[in-house]
Amino acid sequence: MPKPFKSGTQLSELETPVAIVEKAVLQRNMQRMKLLAETHNIRLRPHFKCHKASGFARMQFELGAAGICCQTAGEAEVAAAAGIPDILITNQVLHPARLARLALLAGKTRIGLCFDNPKQVDAASAAVQKVETKIDAYIELDVGGNRCGVRGSDAAIALAAHISQSPGLHLRGLQAYHGAAQHLRKPAERRRAASAVAEQSGAVRSRLTQSGFDCRIITGGGTGTCVEDAEAGGLSELQPGSYLFMDGDYGLNETSLSDPFEHSLFILATVISTRPEHAVIDAGLKSMAFDCGPPRIFGHDRLEYRNASDEHGVLVPVSGPNPLRLGDRIKLIPGHCDPTINLHDAILLMDGDRMERVIEIDARGPR
Amino acid sequence: MPKPFKSGTQLSELETPVAIVEKAVLQRNMQRMKLLAETHNIRLRPHFKCHKASGFARMQFELGAAGICCQTAGEAEVAAAAGIPDILITNQVLHPARLARLALLAGKTRIGLCFDNPKQVDAASAAVQKVETKIDAYIELDVGGNRCGVRGSDAAIALAAHISQSPGLHLRGLQAYHGAAQHLRKPAERRRAASAVAEQSGAVRSRLTQSGFDCRIITGGGTGTCVEDAEAGGLSELQPGSYLFMDGDYGLNETSLSDPFEHSLFILATVISTRPEHAVIDAGLKSMAFDCGPPRIFGHDRLEYRNASDEHGVLVPVSGPNPLRLGDRIKLIPGHCDPTINLHDAILLMDGDRMERVIEIDARGPR
Repeated sequence: MPKPFKSGTQLSELETPVAIVEKAVLQRNMQRMKLLAETHNIRLRPHFKCHKASGFARMQFELGAAGICCQTAGEAEVAAAAGIPDILITNQVLHPARLARLALLAGKTRIGLCFDNPKQVDAASAAVQKVETKIDAYIELDVGGNRCGVRGSDAAIALAAHISQSPGLHLRGLQAYHGAAQHLRKPAERRRAASAVAEQSGAVRSRLTQSGFDCRIITGGGTGTCVEDAEAGGLSELQPGSYLFMDGDYGLNETSLSDPFEHSLFILATVISTRPEHAVIDAGLKSMAFDCGPPRIFGHDRLEYRNASDEHGVLVPVSGPNPLRLGDRIKLIPGHCDPTINLHDAILLMDGDRMERVIEIDARGPR
Repeated sequence: MPKPFKSGTQLSELETPVAIVEKAVLQRNMQRMKLLAETHNIRLRPHFKCHKASGFARMQFELGAAGICCQTAGEAEVAAAAGIPDILITNQVLHPARLARLALLAGKTRIGLCFDNPKQVDAASAAVQKVETKIDAYIELDVGGNRCGVRGSDAAIALAAHISQSPGLHLRGLQAYHGAAQHLRKPAERRRAASAVAEQSGAVRSRLTQSGFDCRIITGGGTGTCVEDAEAGGLSELQPGSYLFMDGDYGLNETSLSDPFEHSLFILATVISTRPEHAVIDAGLKSMAFDCGPPRIFGHDRLEYRNASDEHGVLVPVSGPNPLRLGDRIKLIPGHCDPTINLHDAILLMDGDRMERVIEIDARGPR
């Protein structure tokens, strides 16, 4: 922990740049997702990659999550050490050392892993056999993301046959995540995409079970399509991450929720230099991700964030003189929350303007 | 340290994604910068913000650096703890707690700080008076960056007068860094920019000394303009950072060096999924910065990196079928090295294909 954060510190006293999350908003977001899942009788398996923090994962478990997703073996190790009992790696893992770590972990907690190629299956089977554990196997389907995943029933059946003959692997279902659909702005577009996911994955499941393979679970979805996926009814479980925080990009989706998810995550910054025409703040490329564009400035609709550099950003009014003064505190809504959180070692949980506690990003970084 | 890295591990065995630096190239880059500085009789004050690692700072000191630059108080604390005796914060610092930390540090190591507003001066003076230390004061000039810094001699003289009356601050010179000029592609364009920096800062220095103020040092420059700044002769010291590693963006500058700086930093990735038309690797937004565009793929000029997501990237051939196979190792040249390194907890120093030692990014993150 690089900086000493003391519970009870007021927002106005915090050293910046720092990531903060508003507890009341976070709790509302969690309750809304819980209600959505309960209403549609779908299980929640929130994605750990979003926050990489066992503190947030425990909150999600206390509210009834059935398990979590992780993207890497290192994330799974941190989550398992924090007591999370059911982890699905929504990714392909190839490296023998990393598979050995997952195989060890599978002796203590339930571990699932995704496959789209028989060589991945062989490597995983070899690793689990060495330590006599078992790993759940999911066949990843390409349901529109055009990245990983097999296409169509024949490929899925061939891979299922290979998995079934591989000691230590237990075929459990399908990974059917449509990344691109998360950012479709209109509910009708997302509804079409979610229906297509449900249809494709349902058809593959039918062929698999007809062929005698076990396929209990279809897992997928995200914050962007959670309503549409729940309504489409094709998935057994939802994998949302960003709903806890909401970012600038997801904020641009038109929602059909009557109580939509709200922004709870902010990067707090300070004005360190001013001119008549602009203000310079201390938050740049090293405290926020810019792959979904620059951050929005909370409470200042007429200010734009420009010219991001490593430790600086320039706030420029759309028109007129700069309204900010040296020392002013600014709350920024990052464009993309996952890679933004990954820049920080800690997020401060705020109860109003009072810092309640530090949530360590204990799985931060490539691991 | 999240992952166990063992000295002696071969490149082909490393878990990915991981940041690696090629020692022989790194050493050549350091020797070239040393030669440039010696040839032009200019001091080197490399920028710590680039690597945030006391291990690299110590290498730079062993090769004759006169001091380092830092961008934040937290970076200075890490560097000072590692024995670096002369640190200039090339930034404005306002927060009383952070200034108190710098004032404490100034009791042990030489600390300089930049100012462009009398309120920053008052805050710093109050902090150093409390612990009876002294801090070197530099007036930041805007020499074309259009971000922080005062403009023109009159503003500089007014600020110098204020600094001179502020106990605990010792006026030492001018910070004259032209960020935008670093990325001008043609040597002639950079020459014009460097001449303008030398001229403007020289004129301000003349006015300051005529008015009875001390102005011994003009500090500035970076990897992009190092040759042109050294030749222009206006600066007392150079502040380059990226020359150690070189990134995709600086690699696009046309150089006038006969032995130019070379790429020494790579993100090592693995192909985890393949199709006839593309390969998916395990390095995305959480292991590289994309603000200067996607990475180049070392040794594969006909492959493009597309569709960066958190933990994935898609490598697509410009034409023809995908030449990569599952498990292939890929070396990526990141577009921008500073925010890329800031994503990692460690860089592995490679002696050829053998991992020699881990260099911890011990000042990583906002601090």
